[in-house]
Formats: sequence, C-alpha cells, structure tokens
Amino acid sequence: MKVGLLGLGTVGGGTAQLLLEKKEHFEELLGAELELTLAADLDASQKESLGLDDRIFTQDASRIVGNPEIDIVVETIGGMKVAKDFMLEALSAGQQVVTANKALLATHGREIHATAKANQTSVAFEAAVGGGIPLIRSIREGLLANRIESCMGILNGTSNFILTRMTQDNAPFEEVLALAQKKGYAEQDPTFDVEGVDAAHKLAIITSLVTGDYPSLEDIHMEGISKITPLDIQFANEFGFTVKLLAIMKNKGQKVQARVHPALVPHDHVLASVDGAFNALHITGDWVGDVLLYGLGAGREATASAVVADVVDLARDLLVKSRGRVPALGLAKSRGEHLELAPMEETSCQYYFRFTAADEPGVLAKVSRILSEHNISIETVIQKGRRSEGSVPIVMMTHEAVEKDVSAALARINALPQITEPIMLMRKA
Amino acid sequence: MKVGLLGLGTVGGGTAQLLLEKKEHFEELLGAELELTLAADLDASQKESLGLDDRIFTQDASRIVGNPEIDIVVETIGGMKVAKDFMLEALSAGQQVVTANKALLATHGREIHATAKANQTSVAFEAAVGGGIPLIRSIREGLLANRIESCMGILNGTSNFILTRMTQDNAPFEEVLALAQKKGYAEQDPTFDVEGVDAAHKLAIITSLVTGDYPSLEDIHMEGISKITPLDIQFANEFGFTVKLLAIMKNKGQKVQARVHPALVPHDHVLASVDGAFNALHITGDWVGDVLLYGLGAGREATASAVVADVVDLARDLLVKSRGRVPALGLAKSRGEHLELAPMEETSCQYYFRFTAADEPGVLAKVSRILSEHNISIETVIQKGRRSEGSVPIVMMTHEAVEKDVSAALARINALPQITEPIMLMRKA
Repeated sequence: MKVGLLGLGTVGGGTAQLLLEKKEHFEELLGAELELTLAADLDASQKESLGLDDRIFTQDASRIVGNPEIDIVVETIGGMKVAKDFMLEALSAGQQVVTANKALLATHGREIHATAKANQTSVAFEAAVGGGIPLIRSIREGLLANRIESCMGILNGTSNFILTRMTQDNAPFEEVLALAQKKGYAEQDPTFDVEGVDAAHKLAIITSLVTGDYPSLEDIHMEGISKITPLDIQFANEFGFTVKLLAIMKNKGQKVQARVHPALVPHDHVLASVDGAFNALHITGDWVGDVLLYGLGAGREATASAVVADVVDLARDLLVKSRGRVPALGLAKSRGEHLELAPMEETSCQYYFRFTAADEPGVLAKVSRILSEHNISIETVIQKGRRSEGSVPIVMMTHEAVEKDVSAALARINALPQITEPIMLMRKA
Repeated sequence: MKVGLLGLGTVGGGTAQLLLEKKEHFEELLGAELELTLAADLDASQKESLGLDDRIFTQDASRIVGNPEIDIVVETIGGMKVAKDFMLEALSAGQQVVTANKALLATHGREIHATAKANQTSVAFEAAVGGGIPLIRSIREGLLANRIESCMGILNGTSNFILTRMTQDNAPFEEVLALAQKKGYAEQDPTFDVEGVDAAHKLAIITSLVTGDYPSLEDIHMEGISKITPLDIQFANEFGFTVKLLAIMKNKGQKVQARVHPALVPHDHVLASVDGAFNALHITGDWVGDVLLYGLGAGREATASAVVADVVDLARDLLVKSRGRVPALGLAKSRGEHLELAPMEETSCQYYFRFTAADEPGVLAKVSRILSEHNISIETVIQKGRRSEGSVPIVMMTHEAVEKDVSAALARINALPQITEPIMLMRKA
C-alpha cells in the first residue's frame, strides 16, 4: 500500500510523522506494508523540519497525483482551487483520496463524490469534521439504523474557546479574541471561525451524511459570536443557560433545517459542559436516542489521527479489492433528488431578546404589545435597575415562536424611539 | 442477504422489529435486499407480541444455525452455554455472527474469535458494550492510529442510575435499589450490575480491543457500589468529586491495568455529568488526546440500533466478498502472546478513606502515623463533630499511594480498638 501526501502544513506534517513513526503498528493492523512513498510541499523547508528522507520529499505534486504506483492520496493542502483540481485528478485516475478539507467538501462535495463513484474509488473525510473525533464513521456506520432527527454540534474550537473565556472571565469578545490570536487559537482574520462559516461547512457535511445529499451552503443560516456581550452571557446564565455557538440540523418535519448561531444550552445538557477548544456533536436518532461524541476538534495530532484512520480504512478496502464498500454518504442508491433546506423564517424555537431602552415608563408595555401582536408570548422577563445614560436592559425569554414573526416584531420594536441600541437576539438550542 | 435471529427477548425482539420496519432503508444503504428470514424463540408467545409472520417465526434454532441459506446469524439469547454452542456452530459453518453477549465474549472471546478466523468469517459485537454508542467501531477503526493509554467508562446503567439518585436525593443504597427494581431498571438479583461484574465484562472487551487479546476475567479487580453510603457521596462532594462506578483500563506502563470500582471523578470532568441510565467511555489516545463517547448503554431500541449496524456492516462485507475485512480485535497479525494484567496491588492512585472512630483524643494521630509508616501521605482531612453513640467519621484524601501499601496500612488501622466500623475506601479516577 503506497501513500502520497499533498501538503505538509500542520495536519499534513502531523500525518507524515504519524505514518513514519508507527509504520510497524499499521502493518500489524493491516497484515501488509503501509508506506509513505512521497510527500509533496512547495516549501522545501518542510523537508528539514519533518526530517523527511530525500526519497520521500518532493516539491512536485504531479509525482503523486495520477501516479499509478500511489494507491492512496492524502490531500492536506487546504484551500479550494488547487486542492480540488488535485483531488479530481487523483480520483479520475482511480486513486483513493483522504481529505481534511471541509470547505472544499461543503462547497463541491457533490461533484467530488460523483467523480469518485464514476471512477469506482472513494474519498474519506473523517478529519474534515471534529478533528480526531470519529464522528463521520459513527453517523454513517455506527448509527445507520437510525433516522437522525437532530444533530447539535459545537464544531468550532476557536469560537468555543472564546465563549468559554468570555463566560469564565466575564470578558468582552474583543479582549478574548485578542488573547486567542496571541495564543495561536485564532487566525489574524478570524471571520471564518467567529462568524460561523467554518461551523457551517462542517454542518453541511454532517447534513450530507444524514440526508444523502449536500445542502447549498448559502441556504444555511449563519450567525457568529462577535455581537455577544458578557451581559448576554450573564442574563442567559440567570435564565439557566450557557451560551454556545451551535451548528444545528433538524430532520423531523417535511424539510431539513440547518443553521449555525449562538444558542442557549440548558445548564444540565451535556453540551453545556463542553469547554475550551473541545468539540462535540450531540445526535438524536429515532432508535438510539441521544448520543454525544466529544474530543479535540482541531490540532496537529488529533487531526492526523483521523486522517490516518481513513488511510488504513482505504488500505483495507484495497486489500480486499472492495473500493467504495461503504458509499461516501452511506447510501448505495442515491435518492436522485437535491436536498432543499427549510427556509430560516420557518424555524420555530424559544428566543432570548435583550432590548436596550430609554428608562421611561411604558416601554415594556409597548414592546410586549408588539410581540403579542406577532404571536410571540413571553415566558420570563428580567428588567433591572437603571444603567448609565438613562438606558436600561429589558431581557426576556419567549415561549416557542416562529422566526418570521420574530423578524417582523423586532423590526417594529427597533423602530420605537425608546429603543436606543440594536436588539440582541439568541435562540434556545 | 438473509438474516436469522436467535432469541426474541428485549434486544432480539427490538432487532426483529427494526429489521422489518426499516427494510427499505437498509436496501437503500446496501443496494441489496436485507431479509429477516427466520427468527427463533422457544417461547411461541413472542410470535404474537411481535406480530411475526408464520414463515419467519420458528421455535427451532437449528433451522438457522448452520443453515447455508442464512448468511448472518444474530445471537440475542444471552447466557452462556446455549449461546456459545450456537455461536460456535454457526461460525464453524461459515456464517457471520452478530452478538450482544458481553458475558460470553468476556469469558470465551479468545475461542470465539479463533473459531471465526479459522472459518474465514467474523463476529461483530458493537451491542455488547455501551448499548447504542458506536464505541467498538470507534476504538477499533476510528482511533486505530493511537496507542490507547487509558479508558475510563461508566458502563453499567443500573449502577449509574442508583448512584445518581443516591447523590441527588441523599438516599441510601438499599432504598434506591428497591426503587430501581420497581421501575425495572434493576434485576431482582442485582449482583451482576451493582457489584461490578457486568462492567468488568465490558471492560474485558474494551481491553481486548486495545491490546489485541482478552484478559482473564479473574484478574480484573472488581468492586461494586453496595457499600457506598450517602455520607461518602457528601464527603466526596466536599472534596470536589462525584462518585461513579468506573471501569478503568490503563495502558501506560509495562503491564495493562484493568479494574472496576467506585471512583471519585472531579466535578469538572466530563464523566462527572453522565447521569442516570446513560453510559460513557472516556478514551485517551497518544495522538487524539481525550475523546468521550456517550449515550444510552442499554434498552431495547438503543441496543437494537447497534445490532443492526453490525448486521449491515457484515452484509457489506458479504457484498464485496471480504469477510473479516476488519479483524475482530483490530489486528491482522496476532501478537501470539497472552495478555497479562498488572496485579491490583501495584496500582497507584489517590485514595479516599472514611474511618469511623471512637470519639477519643489521639485517634487521628494513630491513624496518620500508621499511614505515614506505609508511605501514604495525607492531602486533606475532614473531621467533623460528634455523631451518635460516640463515634465520629474521619475522612481523608491521600496523595498518590500504592495499593499494596494501602492494604497493609488499612489492615493495621482496622485492628485499632478505636476503629468501630469497617473502613470505607474509594479511589480517585
């Protein structure tokens, strides 16, 4: 079994090291040799830092992609265009592919899997979601008897680290973000992580495993954590909730819902205690009930662990000449129809609102009347003493309400002259 | 693909229903028909209660076992002798076998897997540990790149239910056990569950996946929860711990440790919040770091979900003519040596002791001196006011100490005339 590795960054470098360090272990597992034959990176300095042999290191990816002597191609380049071209070329040549590239799968998954299928080969992607947590396998194989009714995931370690620190230290977003950037937990441009884009990519992949088709990314509602204040975290806590950035898939009604947004998780729910850089996916199946899978969602070692699990899995397929034994999205027969997500405006859940209002009599009455005119009933209200400059926060949890009604009501409330700041909204998990 | 089912009790009945109800779903997954061809039970009333067709139900297991028309035999009889005979006969005839029988695997796993291998077939056993949680797959396949350094599991739902209620209601063991029996969560003879035997069976299976061989059951240290009092739970709480019955495997030193006993879990550890009938396994791998798998560890639906996942997995093997594609214990090459566990007396950890002593001056000094003479140093002591009849509890947490030293010290302390009740001991997780 010959493996070629494209890209020696964090994950690729870890994968190379793992394949080399534990070569004998993988032979014990496979009963056959698993060789890292070639590892490519444009940056020649990676060769030194990883201590790679001259015979293994190359700057020329074309020695791997399409090379009939390489059985399994590991794509750890990241990014879109180059990674996609290499992947499609490798698949077209009948090579097996392992990838950790969630953005690529979430955007071009359909084309990639179709290419794999047409060439009787396969793409494995355990490392694309949840780092080292074996959640792709668990959904696709371990829980295959179930209709997966709901998935709720903490799938972005950076956001979870920031929210955890905001909660523990009562610190504002900007301050904790700066700390995370200093520690290397957040990128200099943190948009992908903190605005929910990365979590949405992972949610698209999970949704594809549940439904057999990829949703369109633009149909996934996406909200990040940058607007959350320590005040909201405190109020949520008073209501009995922890604030988490959740990726949510619901598969109970006619259409599947997929959305990423800050969410209020009840303190006694297992997801509430998933802190720091940890990821977790909470799955509800019609037969299995609730399952939680938890672990490090990123990082060199954990992600390499998942990449290599896929490499060995594909090697086992090759050994018994059964490429594509488990279809990429679980289904042998494609349903042949494109997945259409439910529009966000049809979502219904409980809402958290924080209004900042001029400290005048009658504001709460006005707000409540508008909400009630839009079928939104209030479960709990907290209105606390005067804050600086004559504004007070009015905070409430609603009973179950519909997103469309909420949008309409909030537009009207926002237009009230007594409302002095943008309304803060969060949804209950 | 033809499936025969042996035993229509809780799990078997659920499996039959699931295979029948979701026949089309499994065809979508497999691209081939998956038929429940025969289901056997001595008790003919099961036929009615499950609404089974005359052509499916039989009281004669020999129509399934060894029948060349049945590809996959599901053993959900439970117990030892009959289940084992059927399983070995089916394997010898080249049939694939799925089982949920942890006691059988833990006791005769070596013989069963050897028989499967000799006949080029396989035994799948996801349902044997952790009910619906896909943990066998996760350890064997998802985490295969790792040296698994430690597993800590809450693997018995009955014990966990009892401990959770004892903690929440401050109620004694006997009272909660009676409640659990009334609710059907505990057997009339609860020994297997509350004395750690069931958890030890599951730990033996987990250990086999980590090491490639089964340990001898008699070498697994086994302690249950029947001696734990609400007072111990309260003191543990004061020290910052929750009491759980843990199955622990450590694979860091020369020899593997495997033990089941009540353990003090720090409040902020994920296992501390696993309550009620839920199970969880906390795994630490050298590359993946910490992983937690959590879900319902028993029950008709959750366990059937795992059984059927195995059935489909074996059917996929049959479709690509690759029986035994993944070796039962992960390793293609057996290491050929029997696993020997480290003796319990070599274990070292932190200890919790509760001494009940006559309320006289100098007892604490005597106890402390004996401990120190056995290299046991005390981290924290709680000695509270007088209890009834002149006895007081002295409770302490030690620093790391060795089991052998602890046994010797406690034997001496126990012999002190001032010690009026047996010493309570728990270990830190």
